[in-house]
Order: sequence, then structure tokens, then C-alpha cells
Amino acid sequence: MKKHYLLTPGPTPIPPEVALKEALPILHHRTSEFAAIYKDVAEGLKYVFQTENEVYTVASSGTGAMEIAVTNLLSSGDEVIVASCGNFGDRWIKIAEGYGAKVISVSVEWGKVVKPAEIEKALKANPNIKAVYTTFTETSTGVVNDIKAIGEIVSKTNAVLVVDTVSGLAGQEFRTDDWKVDVVVSGSQKGFMLAPGLAFITLSDKAWKLTESSKIPKFYFDIKKYKKSYGSNKTPFTPPVTLIVALQESLRLIKEKGLENMWNDYKLLAKAARAGMKALGLKLFGEVPCNVVTSACVPAEIGDKIVKTLREKYGVSIAGGQGDLKGKIIRFAHMGYIGKADLLVGFACLEMVLTELGVNIEKGKAVAAAEEELLLERP
Amino acid sequence: MKKHYLLTPGPTPIPPEVALKEALPILHHRTSEFAAIYKDVAEGLKYVFQTENEVYTVASSGTGAMEIAVTNLLSSGDEVIVASCGNFGDRWIKIAEGYGAKVISVSVEWGKVVKPAEIEKALKANPNIKAVYTTFTETSTGVVNDIKAIGEIVSKTNAVLVVDTVSGLAGQEFRTDDWKVDVVVSGSQKGFMLAPGLAFITLSDKAWKLTESSKIPKFYFDIKKYKKSYGSNKTPFTPPVTLIVALQESLRLIKEKGLENMWNDYKLLAKAARAGMKALGLKLFGEVPCNVVTSACVPAEIGDKIVKTLREKYGVSIAGGQGDLKGKIIRFAHMGYIGKADLLVGFACLEMVLTELGVNIEKGKAVAAAEEELLLERP
Repeated sequence: MKKHYLLTPGPTPIPPEVALKEALPILHHRTSEFAAIYKDVAEGLKYVFQTENEVYTVASSGTGAMEIAVTNLLSSGDEVIVASCGNFGDRWIKIAEGYGAKVISVSVEWGKVVKPAEIEKALKANPNIKAVYTTFTETSTGVVNDIKAIGEIVSKTNAVLVVDTVSGLAGQEFRTDDWKVDVVVSGSQKGFMLAPGLAFITLSDKAWKLTESSKIPKFYFDIKKYKKSYGSNKTPFTPPVTLIVALQESLRLIKEKGLENMWNDYKLLAKAARAGMKALGLKLFGEVPCNVVTSACVPAEIGDKIVKTLREKYGVSIAGGQGDLKGKIIRFAHMGYIGKADLLVGFACLEMVLTELGVNIEKGKAVAAAEEELLLERP
Repeated sequence: MKKHYLLTPGPTPIPPEVALKEALPILHHRTSEFAAIYKDVAEGLKYVFQTENEVYTVASSGTGAMEIAVTNLLSSGDEVIVASCGNFGDRWIKIAEGYGAKVISVSVEWGKVVKPAEIEKALKANPNIKAVYTTFTETSTGVVNDIKAIGEIVSKTNAVLVVDTVSGLAGQEFRTDDWKVDVVVSGSQKGFMLAPGLAFITLSDKAWKLTESSKIPKFYFDIKKYKKSYGSNKTPFTPPVTLIVALQESLRLIKEKGLENMWNDYKLLAKAARAGMKALGLKLFGEVPCNVVTSACVPAEIGDKIVKTLREKYGVSIAGGQGDLKGKIIRFAHMGYIGKADLLVGFACLEMVLTELGVNIEKGKAVAAAEEELLLERP
């Protein structure tokens, strides 16, 4: 009977019309019916990624696509730059070093955004850099990096730019081709409004060229296998059929709404979320807040209690901090199938929980502040 | 409007009560609710695998678990034995060689079963063998290997035995611990009556010991990460929540029915399928036919036409041959949520299609032969 409200940065709620597709009788994956769906999905993915290149679907968590972007581009000993500003940026370091790459880190403190100028400097100082790995919206802190500026810089070098957009794609303006991003990885459970289980990756010609010299062994994550099957609308291994059938529906919803309209909606939600946090006296966290998740500082001793009480008492799931930020921040997601009313539910219940936990706040104030922003509509 | 009947060896049909679970609102994976489900699933998997060891769930196709069994046990240059008798056995060779292992192949012609005595001989001749890789039911040909006998042999050496049970587990008697199998890999889309997207793997203490010396780099498929999270009912990466919630239901159905009863049911279906094929004058293919898929030889020039016509005209999906067997055999699956009536539908439509394609058969004869076996019940 418990009613759940998901305001977490993944998994996000699934629209009922998408969820029901998952319950349809399963199709065999070597049929013309499935091939037609797969083709449609491939086109829809190109739209969301804003690219003319092929986008491949892999059965794995988003991290699987990150691994593909390392093992298919590099050889052991290759020099790469990682520009990290949080937990998921740090994952690039772990994967790259795990496969023997020499990582030059131009990382910044969690909460800050990566500095394009530092990447430029590192590229100049290290002319053999094969790839620059970074993150679009860093889910762990709630900031967004200036990928367009980084794309300008990296595109003038021999290096390729690889960007993790797992939490940001379809939520905030991102243009693979226009911004000169070579490799983009993403996952199904955030902006795509789907269950976890699918990872996506696209590669530019420059990146494909790099795959030719890569010597790291791989089998399941060998992207050439996916490219080879793509032309005949097939997958090299049995794909998660039900998730792909559901993805067709969520991509249909995205196309129907229009990417720019979605970006605008989340921008408005982000403004409302920031206003709500401020009204509660909670300081916003993050140098440049992104539009898909809002982080705010909370008294450290009650950070985890807020998350726990919200979930257990009111069924509202938000996220706490990761790593060193554990207990210190709370994070409200506004991505995927999260709308205005969901955000207001979140703030109303947060007001009650803060009151219960002895924080002196004025009830209704966060909700009012959020409402005010939401009433301004298209910002 | 098209009505589909799946008699393919994966994906197999999904029971409606399982499919509907996939459509439930998504749970967050870091909650006590999901942890409870995950714990229940882990216990259910141990039952199906017939093991006391932990069974790990990975977001990938079944091949992902095969890769885990290579990259986590070996180092480049290690000597291994692969006993292959078909397409999926050959995959062990590709993966192992891809990661630099020295493969000693004791493979047999497709359609034959692997010879335990040959494995024994190869183990004696090569005392440094780290692992023996083989297949339980070889989906591509329809045979079953004597894993119990192989387990007896390998357990007396320093090598570990690794078995791919993707198509056979839950369909035909398989006992991980009793048969002394060290590593067992499987997938969600066959005997588990679920959609594709989950892979499973279990390891014995002997296999865990081997992981300590493994030097092949890995990140997403690093089984130690899964072991570490397992104790707290978590996964190292965002899991395919909806598939795992549905898996809990399919495992409940399996436990309710009882593994031995399931094994008996498929054994009966296999007998009926073999009788049906023979009644049509089609020679059975495979030295020791397994209980989850029945292969029969067909005139080469109409093999693919049979599969295509069955699917397009009657919505009945069966499988044809792979590799050199393409066009030469047809395969009827009787695994997972495939029952007596489904098999009879398959034979009735096959009779019509063969007649249409000009094969001189007596209509009703295959159905009658299958019925006769099915009426004998528990064999």
C-alpha cells in the first residue's frame, strides 16, 4: 500500500505508458518486428544525443558504457586527461587506471566545476594525450560542466573528448555534434524515463579511428561487434527485449514533447528547487548548479536522517551525499518523469521532516517559493 | 493483432504474473524494500543453482557472465581446456583466447557431446591447466553434456570446472555443488522465464582462490565488486530494478512448482517433441538430446523457409540452425514457460507449413505422436 514518490537522480519514475510496454508478451529478437523497433529506437537515440553518428545500445548499467569508452579507445600506457568534479568523474580515473592508462588528473574539489583552461593547459603540456574524459552533469554534487567550451579546446588537438551524460542527457541542453564531443555515454534510468539496464554510447569518426589502435582486450564490450550488427538492426548478444520495447515508447514521448521543451521544463523545475531550498535557509551546494538535480547543504548531524525520514514516513525518496559529502547535502532530482507537482510534494514533506527533526523553519515557505517560480512558466 | 507463440530457445515466453511485475512503479535500489527483494532473489538463485555458494546478478546478457568467468580466473598466458560441442562452447574459445589464454581444445563436431575421457587425458597431459570451460545444454545443437562425470574428473585436479548453463538451468537436472562444478554461469531469458538483461554467476571456494592470482584487468565485470556488495544486499552499479523485481516472482513460481517437477515436465515435453519430429519423418539431430530443446534435420533447401513461414503465417517462432547448420536443422524449445499445448500448436502448424512447402507428410501424425507421449505423464 505504500505510495512512493521518487525524487532521486536515478532511477527516476517511469511513465505508465512506458512501464506497461515492459509487461507486453516478449518478442523474439531475431524477427522483423523487433528489427523495426530497434531501428526506430536507434533513430530516436540519435535525436536525443543530437548526433548524426550511430548510437549503440548495450545491456549493462551506465558504467558499462564508460568502460567501453576506455577499453575501445586506449592501450595500456596511453596518456589521458580526466577532468573530474565528483564521484562519477572519479570513476573515469578508476576505470582508466584499472586498464593501465596513465591518468593526468585536472580534477577539482567536489562541488566545483572543471576548468576548461586547465584542460587546455594539460593538453599543451602533454602532446601525446589520447583522450579527455569528463562529466556533463555530475550527479554526486549537482553541478554542470561547460562541455561546449571543452569541446572547442579538445577538437583542436589529436585527443578525443569523452563525456559521461548518464544523468544529464534529455534533461539539459547537450549537443554531441555541435559541441564537438567525440564519445558520449549514457544510461536508460534517468532522462530516458526508463528502468535501469541499458547503456548507450556514440562515437565520432575521430574516435573510431582511435579504436583501430586500441590494444586493450575486450569481448562483451567490444564496440566493433555492436557496430557490425547495427546495420542489420541487430545486437551481437541477446538484448534486453522488454527494456528496448519500452525505450521505443519513452523515445516517442520525448520526440512528441520535443527536446528543447524538455530542457526548458527542467530548467524551470531547477529554478523552483533552488528557490525552495533557499526559502528553507539551506545553502545551495555546487559552483554551477545543473538543471537535473539540486543539492543543498544541511546540518551534518541530520543529513542522513532527513533522507531516511522522508522515505520511511512519507514515501518520498531523495538522495543524500556520497563520499565526503555523506550526511552533508541533500539532493532533489528533477529529471525524467518528475514534474512540478512531484517537486511540491517533495518540499512539503521536507518541511514536515525538518520541523520534526527540530530545525526551525516556517512551514509552507519552501512550497510558496517553489510555486512562485513555477508560475513564471517558460523562463 | 498478431498472436505470437514462442518456441525459441531464448527468449522464452514470460508468465503474465511475472511480466506484470515489470510494469510496477520503479523502486529505488538503495532502499530497504529493494534490499529485501534482492535478498530473497539471492536465496532463490541458490536454490535454482543447487548451491550453498553465493550467486551474483549482473546487468548484462549471458555472455557477460561468461566473460566474468574468464577475466576473473585467468591471467594472460594461462593454459585452459575448452570442451566445446557447438556455437556457445566455441564462444568460450573466443573469449579465452581474446584475453590471452592458451586454449587446449578438446572440442567435438557439432551435434556430438564432449568426451569426459578426452578432458581427463588433456588434464593429465597438461598439468598447468587453470580451468576447464564447457557447456551444459548446447543450445545451438540441442545436446546435453555429462557435467557430473566431468565434475568428478576435474575436481581431482588443480583446475576449476566452469559450465555455461544459460539454456539448461531450471530446465534439466543440474546440481552445482553435488556435481562439483566450480563456476556456473546463466542468464534470465530461458529457464528463468524472464526477459533478457540479467546474467548470473556462482563460484566455489576453489574458484575464489583462483581469482586472487588473476591479472587480467577488469572493472564492470570485476566479480569482487559484486561479492563485496552482496553481503549488504546491494549491487556495485545501478541494477535493472524492474527485471530483478520480476525475477523474484519467477523464482517464487519455480519454488512453488519445485525444481524436480520442472525437470520432469521438460523431460516429458522433450519426449513428445522427439516423437513428433520422428512422426514427420525428420531425423533427430544430436548425439545425446537434451530436455530443453529438440533439434531435427530438415531438407536443406527448405530449412530457413520453414522457420520463416511458421513465424510469418502462424506467429509460431522456432529456431533454425546456426553456423554450418544454417538451413539444415530446426529447433523446438521446451524450456521456461513453454507447456504441452504450446508444443502441440508448434507441431500442428509445422505440419501445415511442411505440407505447403511440398513435403509429403501425413497431417495430424506429429500431433498424435506428441499427444501419445504427453498422455503418459510423469515419465
